[in-house]
Amino acid sequence: MSLAMCKEELAEYLAVVFPQVKEDFAIDDLTEDSVTMRLLTADRHLRPGGTVSGPSMFALADVCVYAMVLARLGRMALAVTTSCSMDFMRKPEGQAQMIAKCRLLKLGRTLAVGDILMYSEGSDKPVARATMTYSVPPAGSAASVAG
Amino acid sequence: MSLAMCKEELAEYLAVVFPQVKEDFAIDDLTEDSVTMRLLTADRHLRPGGTVSGPSMFALADVCVYAMVLARLGRMALAVTTSCSMDFMRKPEGQAQMIAKCRLLKLGRTLAVGDILMYSEGSDKPVARATMTYSVPPAGSAASVAG
Amino acid sequence: MSLAMCKEELAEYLAVVFPQVKEDFAIDDLTEDSVTMRLLTADRHLRPGGTVSGPSMFALADVCVYAMVLARLGRMALAVTTSCSMDFMRKPEGQAQMIAKCRLLKLGRTLAVGDILMYSEGSDKPVARATMTYSVPPAGSAASVAG
Amino acid sequence: MSLAMCKEELAEYLAVVFPQVKEDFAIDDLTEDSVTMRLLTADRHLRPGGTVSGPSMFALADVCVYAMVLARLGRMALAVTTSCSMDFMRKPEGQAQMIAKCRLLKLGRTLAVGDILMYSEGSDKPVARATMTYSVPPAGSAASVAG
Repeated sequence: MSLAMCKEELAEYLAVVFPQVKEDFAIDDLTEDSVTMRLLTADRHLRPGGTVSGPSMFALADVCVYAMVLARLGRMALAVTTSCSMDFMRKPEGQAQMIAKCRLLKLGRTLAVGDILMYSEGSDKPVARATMTYSVPPAGSAASVAG
Repeated sequence: MSLAMCKEELAEYLAVVFPQVKEDFAIDDLTEDSVTMRLLTADRHLRPGGTVSGPSMFALADVCVYAMVLARLGRMALAVTTSCSMDFMRKPEGQAQMIAKCRLLKLGRTLAVGDILMYSEGSDKPVARATMTYSVPPAGSAASVAG
Repeated sequence: MSLAMCKEELAEYLAVVFPQVKEDFAIDDLTEDSVTMRLLTADRHLRPGGTVSGPSMFALADVCVYAMVLARLGRMALAVTTSCSMDFMRKPEGQAQMIAKCRLLKLGRTLAVGDILMYSEGSDKPVARATMTYSVPPAGSAASVAG
Repeated sequence: MSLAMCKEELAEYLAVVFPQVKEDFAIDDLTEDSVTMRLLTADRHLRPGGTVSGPSMFALADVCVYAMVLARLGRMALAVTTSCSMDFMRKPEGQAQMIAKCRLLKLGRTLAVGDILMYSEGSDKPVARATMTYSVPPAGSAASVAG
């Protein structure tokens, strides 16, 4: 098991296939089975009450597992989310960036599973957890070489 | 069991406490235990490939259960999502509006649960399903009278 | 879309590949995209307090989607559960049989998704909901002809 | 934050309020925010194919969070599961005991959330993951002093 892309290559590829990533997310750290990303919290990520919105946290969890799959399998833009579960446990701090720590639990022939804990930067109490399952295009398929 | 707000009152209250609703979502139908809402699909809701993004579908499912809770309990802006599960089953049509049909499965003293099927308008195959759980502030608490 | 097995053939096949089904579950109704099954509630299905246990409800939801996949695809014993989400909403009645109404939401090339509402017989308030995802062995694979 | 019961007291209390625990599960380790338990795998926990069944893994995940809540809050038999999500990632070994490592992510006034990774003993690849949410009876309520 090894990485197909380093952190810099991954950030560059994500910026190409998923342009909104560049403004919204940054990669802090990448290993063979984990990635740490952050939400560059801005007004557009907040909900009434001034906390980070659910859709923004969903997007952060989702991009982590997408990034992890790309980092391991290489340029495979068409991996798609098939399911997710999330628990929202504490109020996210609207003034802080949000840090997501993702572990890759499985990278199989057709499915990848990652779980994520999210924190408001500076706190060690998890704000939310998520599990995301991705469908991975079979090696050699048209989809797997797209992008 | 009865509604605390009709469809028009609900739309008006949502527009006040959750201003982005106005541009992104519309209420098609409301009963005592169901609501049908639509995503007014625009470029900002799409992801690479031109399909509706995961965060946009999350937001649509989430606003349905929020709307359902408000319609039943009245002006209680501080109900918050505590958990969700979603399955993404088909490619959503990026050119179509997305219709969400939500059933309220439970409205308890502290928790409300709704499930949602989402369709690209004009198709009867579900694109995604979701279940959202909300924490409802206890009647008479400060939170329950806020907003 | 059509059924590969009728209700009686399905019950017979389940009894062969999954012998505990015979004592624990019965099929009430089967259509091309739905199945209704019941838990033949006995003492071994109860938990402290005399209500139906979580694992028994999990098993009921799980067997519904398994049965649905078999009914559509034929004798394919090796379909396996890949994920589930459940919400427990009301106290199940320990004296009543439990009825599960399952809709098949997707039957794809590699994944099948079904959702389930469970009721204590005689009540119309759902006790629990579940979504189960199955991995379906590719047509023609060794797994797909086993059993 | 501290424990209301040590490992031995917890095992004893579980055996009283939840008698099947004694034969099916053992507590390996307990800290203020984690518990490790094992399934004492026997024939009754297996499914066709000789692997550990889904309901048995559900039961293992469920008892972990129940044990964790009791260990922290004391004798509160009536805490109940309100939701779960599970992902089944690898084939569990039917000959091995199953080890579950549970982290308590939140212990709030009304809800507790724990997540669990499960392994076949002797392997470091997770077989399954689960998140369980419990509803905790309010302090001082009849339910909280039952059992």
